[in-house]
Order: sequence, then C-alpha cells, then structure tokens
Amino acid sequence: MKKIIVGVMGPGANATDLDVENAYQLGKLIAQAGWVLLTGGRNEGVMDAASKGAKSANGLTVGILPSSDTTTASDAVDIAIVTDLGNARNNINVLSSDIIIACGMGTGTAAEIALALKVNKKVILLNNNQPSKAFFHSLAKQQILIAENPIAAIELANQLLANLN
Amino acid sequence: MKKIIVGVMGPGANATDLDVENAYQLGKLIAQAGWVLLTGGRNEGVMDAASKGAKSANGLTVGILPSSDTTTASDAVDIAIVTDLGNARNNINVLSSDIIIACGMGTGTAAEIALALKVNKKVILLNNNQPSKAFFHSLAKQQILIAENPIAAIELANQLLANLN
Amino acid sequence: MKKIIVGVMGPGANATDLDVENAYQLGKLIAQAGWVLLTGGRNEGVMDAASKGAKSANGLTVGILPSSDTTTASDAVDIAIVTDLGNARNNINVLSSDIIIACGMGTGTAAEIALALKVNKKVILLNNNQPSKAFFHSLAKQQILIAENPIAAIELANQLLANLN
Amino acid sequence: MKKIIVGVMGPGANATDLDVENAYQLGKLIAQAGWVLLTGGRNEGVMDAASKGAKSANGLTVGILPSSDTTTASDAVDIAIVTDLGNARNNINVLSSDIIIACGMGTGTAAEIALALKVNKKVILLNNNQPSKAFFHSLAKQQILIAENPIAAIELANQLLANLN
Repeated sequence: MKKIIVGVMGPGANATDLDVENAYQLGKLIAQAGWVLLTGGRNEGVMDAASKGAKSANGLTVGILPSSDTTTASDAVDIAIVTDLGNARNNINVLSSDIIIACGMGTGTAAEIALALKVNKKVILLNNNQPSKAFFHSLAKQQILIAENPIAAIELANQLLANLN
Repeated sequence: MKKIIVGVMGPGANATDLDVENAYQLGKLIAQAGWVLLTGGRNEGVMDAASKGAKSANGLTVGILPSSDTTTASDAVDIAIVTDLGNARNNINVLSSDIIIACGMGTGTAAEIALALKVNKKVILLNNNQPSKAFFHSLAKQQILIAENPIAAIELANQLLANLN
Repeated sequence: MKKIIVGVMGPGANATDLDVENAYQLGKLIAQAGWVLLTGGRNEGVMDAASKGAKSANGLTVGILPSSDTTTASDAVDIAIVTDLGNARNNINVLSSDIIIACGMGTGTAAEIALALKVNKKVILLNNNQPSKAFFHSLAKQQILIAENPIAAIELANQLLANLN
Repeated sequence: MKKIIVGVMGPGANATDLDVENAYQLGKLIAQAGWVLLTGGRNEGVMDAASKGAKSANGLTVGILPSSDTTTASDAVDIAIVTDLGNARNNINVLSSDIIIACGMGTGTAAEIALALKVNKKVILLNNNQPSKAFFHSLAKQQILIAENPIAAIELANQLLANLN
C-alpha cells in the first residue's frame, strides 16, 4: 500500500547552517512519524542533511537524482531514482510528495515551490527569506503555510495529511 | 546555422489584458528583429498572443507543448514540439531560449524564471508585480533585468545578445 | 545506504497469462533476495503482478508512474514516484535499476530494453518471443542474457550483481 | 499554422556510410517537399547528414538535443531545442513528428521506433537490418512500412500524410 511521502526541498551547496540544521531535524521527525522522506537526493545541503536525519531515526529515504548515475547521491539515500533529467526532475519531486516542505531558499527551491503551486499543492515554507514569503503569498495565498521551526512544520504536515484523507 | 531564439514566458488563462497586449507586441518586435519566437505553445494568454504577434510580422514561431498531442496548440505556432512532459517542459523552454522575457506572472512563469536563474541565465521581467521583482532580485540580482514596456524589453534583449556573441 | 534495485519491465494490459505468472514469481524472488522491486507502477499486467509478488514476501516496491497522480498505481506499490512524463519515464525505470529483467514483450518493454542497451546496461530477457531475442542479440549481443524461467532470471541477476560489486 | 514535421531517426557515431548517404538524401527530399526536418540534433551520423541534406535544399531543420546546451549540435540545425533530458528526449522526437523515418538501426533508433509504435504511430524503416524488420513486424505489423531507398521512403511519407489529413 502506498506509503506517505514527505518531500523536503532546499538548497544544495548554498544551504545555510540553519537550513542544514533544520533539514536534519525535519528528516528525523519525518522518520519518527513513520513517513517516507523524499529529497533531490544529492550529497549536499538540505538534501543530504534531511536524508541523514531520517536515517538517524531509521526512516526510509528516497532521492530523485538529476544525474545519469548515482555518483552524486547522498550516502543516506536508500532508494536512488536516477532521472537524467537535470532540473526537470524538480517536477517529479513535487508530484511525488504528499506534503512539501521548502527548507531554505534558492533558485531550485523556488522552482519547486512554483511547480507545486501550479498543480494546486500546498507548500510549507521554513525559512527567513521575507521576499520569498511575500512573493509566494501573492501568487497563491491559500496554498502557502509558514512554519517557524521544524516542529511547527511537522505539525502543519500532520494537519494537511488529515485533510487529504 | 542555429537561429537566435527568444523565449516569451507568461500565463495562459490567467494572463491580464495588459499581459496579452504586451505579449503581442513582443512577438511582433521579435519577428521584426529576425529572431525566432519560442513559447509554451498553448492557445491561451501570453503564449497565444506572442505567437500571433510574431506571425503578424511573418516571424517563425516555436511552441513547446506540455501535452501529448497538438490539440491545444495555438494556431499561430509553426513548429509544435510535443513533449508530453507536463510542467517539466518548462525547463526546455528556458534552456532552448537565448533570451528569456517573462511577460506577466503566475506559477508557471515563476517556475520558468527560477529554472533560468538556476542555470545562470538572465531574465527580462515585464510585469507590474512588485513582489516578484523583489523576490527574484533577492535570489539573483545580477541576472534580473526590468523592462517597463515591450520596446524596452527588446532593447535589453539586443544588449544581452551583443554580450553573448 | 543505497539499496539494490531490480527492475521488472513488461506489458500492462497486453501481458499474457504466463507473463503475469512469471512476474509474480519474479517479484516474490526479488523480495526474498532482499532487493527492492522497481516497476512502471501501474495497476495492470506485469507491473501489478510483480509488485504483488514482492509484497507476498514482504518486499519493498517502487513504481515509476507515467501519469500526473497515483490513481492508476498498483495497490501493491509502496513508493509511488509520480513523473507526469508519459513514456519518457521508461528511461528512469532503466537508469534506476541495478538489474533489468524484461518479462514478456511489447512496445513499451522494447523501448525500455533499447534504452538500457543504449547506456550499456545488461538486460535479462524472460519471454517466448523469438524475434525479440534475435533482434536484441543483433543490437548488443554481450548485453543480452536469456532466462527460461523466473528462477533462472534471478540466478542471472545474482551473477550480474556479483560482477557489479 | 502548424508546419508538417518529418522526423528522421538514426544512429550517431555508429551510422554506416549507407545510413549517412540515405540520411542526406532524405533530408534533401524532405526539404524539397516543403516539410520541416526534425532529428536528434547532434553533429554526428544520421542526425547531422539529414540536417545537411535539408539545408542543401534550403529546408528548415529542428534538432531535439539530449544535452544541456548546444555545443554538440549539428551546424546544419536551425532550431536547436535544448532538452537536458538525455535519452528521454527520444520520446519528444517521436511525438513531435507527423511522419517518422528510421534510417539505419541502433539502440537509440530502436527505442524511438518502439516509442512511436507505443502511441500508435506508423514508422517507415529504411535499413538492411532483417532482425529489426522481423521484430517490429511482430510487435505491430500494421504500423511498420518498409522502404528500399530514400525516394521510396518519401513516397510512403506522402501517402501517410494524405491519410492523416
């Protein structure tokens, strides 16, 4: 039976220390909730930290890789999906996630949020980037939820999942 | 020999009257400059209007369709590229364009801008949406150019093309 | 740590009774070996039967769906990857699988075998279709392995995995 | 208004001398018929030769590139579509072509033929590879047409186009 997948999207090399810390906590909490973690799969930044957090709590981790092999995958990814689609794989990240949490901000993350909004999905934002919050609110106010920290993000995820079912 | 391709990205059904008017002008000016117009190809909003503008000046129009056939293509598209990729085709729009002009704003357009910035491309913004300008500036200031009207957008395109060569 | 993924590719609605029976056995044997099963994810034919076989042995199943949601997913898929790529998703099936077993034959299966050979992967063929064996042998003899039944296919998979490591 | 697009699919570096000669003739005849030529766009083999043939008759050429930029594009491609999809772009080649001619044989070409048959498109085969003809006939007899030379292929294309309209 289909497992619940929570996607954590965020920067790779440009992630801040706080993004990485938050991502690790998110991954851990997602695993503790019994959900599958999905990320962009690479061995950097938010993708890597969230996957490691999930593994620290014995979770299951899926990585949707942009590349044509697994050489750049995070060691903490269990299921490596090799797409060879470059950034077009961002759309798969979004479509495959029952819940989407954007941790931090960057160009790839912004694309993922926009693609999620495009198909009427809700997105939980966890960052200190005011312009991003103002912009995505202006695009699709009903679909944007703001979390102040990882625990609040997971509470919002729980509420959204309750409404999905 | 490879022709210069100028991509005009913008909303479909949610385009404003001004977006549509601007898109038509952009298409016409692009054709008059001897460039190929590329859009998302559908028979709505900015895609349709830009293609019609280009055809009014005997230009060549390419449409990168998200669907699996050409039934939703604009009548003004000459070369219909059928991707069956859904919104993942947005990345092709961006990668195939030498110059990218975002006319209006919406979730799909935001995704295209973000994907362009991700691969270090410059984007010319033509809209009245202040939050989008503030946000994309905050993401990648050097890559964002603001145009007040279609003529200014084409002037910026000319400058960017001069620098590419 | 990355788990071993074995992909079982085969027809959907056009699968024969023998294909379906073989697929179920393959899924079961893959799960018993401790590997993850990957299929095209839909609720038909080889994809569905292999997934059910794997679940009968408490395996983990991944489905790479061509569609934009999970409505056509097999009930036996644990991890549903929603690609919205149509048949372009066949390339992901192939790239994500450490071992590829083609169970039965059809146009989609033929595309997957060809895409696997294109990137120098080996493919285990389990079918009674002589023209397919002759053709793929002629394309890439070294990469084609013939299995007479599911147990033989799994033995070949074991040998290939030993060589990969 | 949408132009007629004829796709010529065939090997790159592994094309035979006859494939290359045939591809050049096909490109030339396609251009003379007033159709747009579509290929996989790279500067090798059938893609390159067909594009050069079309340009020798002042045709318009489209190349659907697998790569993330145009550095590997044939000089004879006018409209370079940059997909960054790797071999997944083969599906776009097929879907965008009103008529598909497979010139020569190889793993990529086989994938394209199979993908075309999958969506019920007809394919004109121009090659000396008997196993491929036997196999694709066995898969979808009604959709496979055999041409002995480029002129015969173009005659078949004309007949198919007459039936499409």
